Amino acid sequence: MQRELAMLARLVRQGTLELELPGGEVHRFGSGAPLARWRFARPAALRRIAANPELALGETYMRGDWDAPPGELAALLTVLLRNAGEFVQRAGRLRRLLAAALQQWNRVQVSYRNASHHYDLDEWLFRRFLDRDMYYSCAYFTAPDVGLEDAQRAKAEHIAAKLCLQPGQRVLDIGSGWGSLALHLAQHHGVEVTGLTLSRRQLEAAQRAARERGLAERVRFLLQDYREHQGQYDRIVSVGMFEHVGRPFYARFFGQVAACLRPGGVALLHTICRLGPPGTTNAWVRKYIFPGGYSPALSELADGIEHSALKVTDVELLRRHYALTLRAWQARFQQHRAEVAERLGETFCRMWEFYLAASEASFEVGDLGVAQVQLATHIDAVPLTRDYLYRQRSAPQALRRAG
Amino acid sequence: MQRELAMLARLVRQGTLELELPGGEVHRFGSGAPLARWRFARPAALRRIAANPELALGETYMRGDWDAPPGELAALLTVLLRNAGEFVQRAGRLRRLLAAALQQWNRVQVSYRNASHHYDLDEWLFRRFLDRDMYYSCAYFTAPDVGLEDAQRAKAEHIAAKLCLQPGQRVLDIGSGWGSLALHLAQHHGVEVTGLTLSRRQLEAAQRAARERGLAERVRFLLQDYREHQGQYDRIVSVGMFEHVGRPFYARFFGQVAACLRPGGVALLHTICRLGPPGTTNAWVRKYIFPGGYSPALSELADGIEHSALKVTDVELLRRHYALTLRAWQARFQQHRAEVAERLGETFCRMWEFYLAASEASFEVGDLGVAQVQLATHIDAVPLTRDYLYRQRSAPQALRRAG
Repeated sequence: MQRELAMLARLVRQGTLELELPGGEVHRFGSGAPLARWRFARPAALRRIAANPELALGETYMRGDWDAPPGELAALLTVLLRNAGEFVQRAGRLRRLLAAALQQWNRVQVSYRNASHHYDLDEWLFRRFLDRDMYYSCAYFTAPDVGLEDAQRAKAEHIAAKLCLQPGQRVLDIGSGWGSLALHLAQHHGVEVTGLTLSRRQLEAAQRAARERGLAERVRFLLQDYREHQGQYDRIVSVGMFEHVGRPFYARFFGQVAACLRPGGVALLHTICRLGPPGTTNAWVRKYIFPGGYSPALSELADGIEHSALKVTDVELLRRHYALTLRAWQARFQQHRAEVAERLGETFCRMWEFYLAASEASFEVGDLGVAQVQLATHIDAVPLTRDYLYRQRSAPQALRRAG
Repeated sequence: MQRELAMLARLVRQGTLELELPGGEVHRFGSGAPLARWRFARPAALRRIAANPELALGETYMRGDWDAPPGELAALLTVLLRNAGEFVQRAGRLRRLLAAALQQWNRVQVSYRNASHHYDLDEWLFRRFLDRDMYYSCAYFTAPDVGLEDAQRAKAEHIAAKLCLQPGQRVLDIGSGWGSLALHLAQHHGVEVTGLTLSRRQLEAAQRAARERGLAERVRFLLQDYREHQGQYDRIVSVGMFEHVGRPFYARFFGQVAACLRPGGVALLHTICRLGPPGTTNAWVRKYIFPGGYSPALSELADGIEHSALKVTDVELLRRHYALTLRAWQARFQQHRAEVAERLGETFCRMWEFYLAASEASFEVGDLGVAQVQLATHIDAVPLTRDYLYRQRSAPQALRRAG
């Protein structure tokens, strides 16, 4: 224990960390704001964390070895992350290559299995913390205090603007989830959408929603991998799916986008990215949340694109937006925590709240961001300047009616 | 000759190329628009071009071996470039590494020499084709028919907006040229600017301009390499200089920007970039125009940034803007062609017009673009969304007075 306390004394340089042991004993590290409290029920966990922080921090939390005061888990993890220093493993080139080959070799069958691990979880669970439309990706906050429903709508509209949609166009949505974006684009922008998902449960939910909203004629959903699909589209969009592609398949992904895009076509890729150099996926996240997942560095994204026929026409870095989104999801999740614990168990609950809080902390400190990359077959497929994205748009007609 | 004609017949797939030989003989390749005419005074040059297109195309033009109809040189080069096919050499990784090591090893002393090669050319020459303020980089056209003076002013204002300037801030301008941007920012945004240049002639011209405009108290210019400078700044800007840094020094460049930027600081890098994968600099450009020069692929830019403490917060890809800028420069240059030929010789004139036309063609076909990369020390150093760049700005006060 003394060794771990000495290590914390050495590491904590930003803010204050208060470590509380079961008998009431308190150790203080660092100074000033913010103050984070780390409450141990089983102090032995500290040794496991020090030995293998990537995996053990989450696992000891799941077992209830330690806690933060209510509502302060993300803040605690943010302080830990900011001060991680020697804990943050900058993966070397060889380790990265090995990790990519071993952990992200997402062949088609593996991709189906990986998607099922997460997205075939009961829709009931996702309804406990997502917005009404079930967008499961970073929202777009025109201001920090905008509500989640509005921020997700604003994201859909921001993406629609970047796609330069015209009524009647054919749009491919790679990773269509519960159908939220595909249905929005069809309803409010008059386009025909094909959505691809690898989750049977998502497929069924999306098809049901299309029928309920009277859009089944114009939106079709397929249980298909991006590599299995053939078709020609005016526009392609992919939101929150690229994180599952894996480094070895980036060239394949962009080659497929290029192959499915008609001349003059525009695509929009929305993906989590790491704001530092290429790395490896956190071991806990890989084991419990997203097997096969990897968030690219911008250099890796650009490399994949440059070897396709596509041209980058714009890259927006959404930074704090995902921290705000995750905070909103956590708040909703906590409101339903008792129900979720009853249905899925306490360990599942702790896993989920740790996942949301750790993700929030990663965006908070700026290790992760979200890249919206606009791509085109030709440099003139999008307007000369970006003003068109920021003109006061009158709300689309159907939106106004609904409102 | 037959071999070269057969090769052209094989290559030309987009538009029509009409090759005119001295006796009046005309060979037509391809079909449809656009039509480009290639007039040979010495047909033997065609063999040299086929053997070594990178170097010989420009050299044979400089010697007067061939011509395009007046005003159609860039259009001819655009058709040649679009159909280049097997001519466009995709440099392999080894060739790229060797080229970077041999041709872009821009140590400080080499950088001074390289800069002198181009920027110590008589200011008189640059006044023959640049705008009044002497911006020697891609302008920002809010519409294709905006005049060059306005488009360069708009570029300065677009960059000022991206820098989120506050009066009184200290700004470092790496590669300050004839001082245009530094003086604009000081005059219209109330900041103090330090400009670095490696050209003695540019230094003197910029210092003279600062005195004439009564800005010598707030703008200083130094004959210094970016690696020689020490200082702490709120903002850093670099426009059209990064093309001279060289691949081996990207990490050094961004490390230096990070070191000179105060916490909360913002930087804006404006550089030509290649829209395809990493490559090598065209041999003719390297020999006659920019020794040591190299335009990065986005993946190379991102790689350099990721190994520094800086975070990318926005990447705008200006595409056709530089083709429009170069067309305007060429038009002005042609107006003064007789004067330039008299003073600097016919061969120099042909070299210069080929440089402008070949550059225009590269931007026209989308081989090259311009990246404006916004960087920050912290993710919250710039606003949450990019709306602030597109609000109707009332013209800065001093601009209104001047107008």
